[in-house]
Amino acid sequence: MDERAALSFLTDRLSHAGDDAAVVDGQVLTTDMLHETTDFPAGTTRYTAGWRSVGASLSDVAAMGAEATAAVAVYAAPEFDDADLGDFVAGASDVCEAVGAEYVGGDLDESREFTAATTALGRTDDPVLRSGASPGERVCVTGTLGRTGAALELFERGDSERNDTERANDLFRFEPRVEAGRIVAPYATAMMDSSDGLARSLHQLAAASDCGFSVRWDALPVDEAVREVADSEAEVRERSVFFGEDFELVFTVPERALETVREASPTPISVVGEVTASGVEMDGETLPDRGYTHGGG
Amino acid sequence: MDERAALSFLTDRLSHAGDDAAVVDGQVLTTDMLHETTDFPAGTTRYTAGWRSVGASLSDVAAMGAEATAAVAVYAAPEFDDADLGDFVAGASDVCEAVGAEYVGGDLDESREFTAATTALGRTDDPVLRSGASPGERVCVTGTLGRTGAALELFERGDSERNDTERANDLFRFEPRVEAGRIVAPYATAMMDSSDGLARSLHQLAAASDCGFSVRWDALPVDEAVREVADSEAEVRERSVFFGEDFELVFTVPERALETVREASPTPISVVGEVTASGVEMDGETLPDRGYTHGGG
Repeated sequence: MDERAALSFLTDRLSHAGDDAAVVDGQVLTTDMLHETTDFPAGTTRYTAGWRSVGASLSDVAAMGAEATAAVAVYAAPEFDDADLGDFVAGASDVCEAVGAEYVGGDLDESREFTAATTALGRTDDPVLRSGASPGERVCVTGTLGRTGAALELFERGDSERNDTERANDLFRFEPRVEAGRIVAPYATAMMDSSDGLARSLHQLAAASDCGFSVRWDALPVDEAVREVADSEAEVRERSVFFGEDFELVFTVPERALETVREASPTPISVVGEVTASGVEMDGETLPDRGYTHGGG
Repeated sequence: MDERAALSFLTDRLSHAGDDAAVVDGQVLTTDMLHETTDFPAGTTRYTAGWRSVGASLSDVAAMGAEATAAVAVYAAPEFDDADLGDFVAGASDVCEAVGAEYVGGDLDESREFTAATTALGRTDDPVLRSGASPGERVCVTGTLGRTGAALELFERGDSERNDTERANDLFRFEPRVEAGRIVAPYATAMMDSSDGLARSLHQLAAASDCGFSVRWDALPVDEAVREVADSEAEVRERSVFFGEDFELVFTVPERALETVREASPTPISVVGEVTASGVEMDGETLPDRGYTHGGG
């Protein structure tokens, strides 16, 4: 089985699988694992790695429309360097602080490659699932798309005179959209984060809600860093729509709620299209269900 | 830094580190990572691996005197086999069910070796820390010691006619002492689990509580499986006192509470010695501060 087939296998066996996080008695729980070879390109600082790995779990809490309360991490590496470990903990603590959560530590483990296993805890009495979208509603995304797609290119270039690596690290340290998620939650009919890319997120929402989507390319909030690193318009599209790992929120709302959520959200919200009866399309053409390939690019 | 120095480094930086689990607003959160090469000897079934890895986190919840509510896991492997994955999930679900918690899934990840990263969530308004023991109190352990020490020997032998591997798997699937922990919690002054072995647990409690311990060898509840596999009395001691990973509770209580907790606990409780002013001794001799060596034996 590949990873997607295996995930689907798990979803059939566990009542709470299939959303970004599990919810038990109002507590939201989610866990992730990131590896050096697949998730942290050469040049990624341990501060950025701590921020990003804990941030990925906090993003899942945000995607449920929940308040983020705490996070823990297992830091696994072939050896423990105190500067590396201190940097990781600082990044993990800072991303928690940015969303009002508390980083409460975790554990250490020896492993062949640097690996971070993170868990975030949140709280909500009314989680937003992936399954409530209805035709006619609007589909929105927070922030900008393609930051990770741009960062990967900058890590690869690594031009020190242009500070490529430093800028890539900046782009890698996203802010989990916890506050926007809380504001959107009372109105959103379906929500998830864009960790697998916008295209795959739309397909997953469509499958869970039994609906379709029609989005417009020119409505997507493409990050300016993508245009800077991409050689062609096709590459801009590729990095914005398919690369993923931007950890923005993708959600659906009735049109009447749009103004309320856009005004209240601290993060810009873009309306990128509509919920339809079936099919996932961009500018009238089928949007393929493919996403970020780990270790590729 | 070695793992212990690194843990101490972390403890200095995080307010909630230094106990078996973190506590935030009455929610108990703990995470662990186990690897095939260091934690699952050849012959360990994936059912046992699922049980044991999630059980290790549930044991940390038990060690805080908390109720266990939920657990998640990341299952990481070079490839995903549906039988393996189904067995892992079954083991993880069954150990949760054994302690009244809910297994709510998790995530999958590709990694070079089979790795399980587990997180458990619990709830308590009055956590038992490691830091409250006072001289004159009794020190107790739940269940028996040395099950893992015996299992490792049985895995190594692997005599199929004697069902060594099957028995080793049975010994590896410990029951997290959540119920005993709940019963002991109102009376215990300090508590932790014996995941690093009895000797190291006593040293950790002594350091956190600024006290000492005097225990008696003949009072230890040595599992009968240890005597069966060990060639000498010295080896019985080694496997019972230093090997660890038995996930029993080690706790201190005033003498007047002893009868109450022993009668109410579903798991036998053995009084193994007393809290003293300083020094950790067994039968009047210093008990070294050493424990289980990962991947060794």
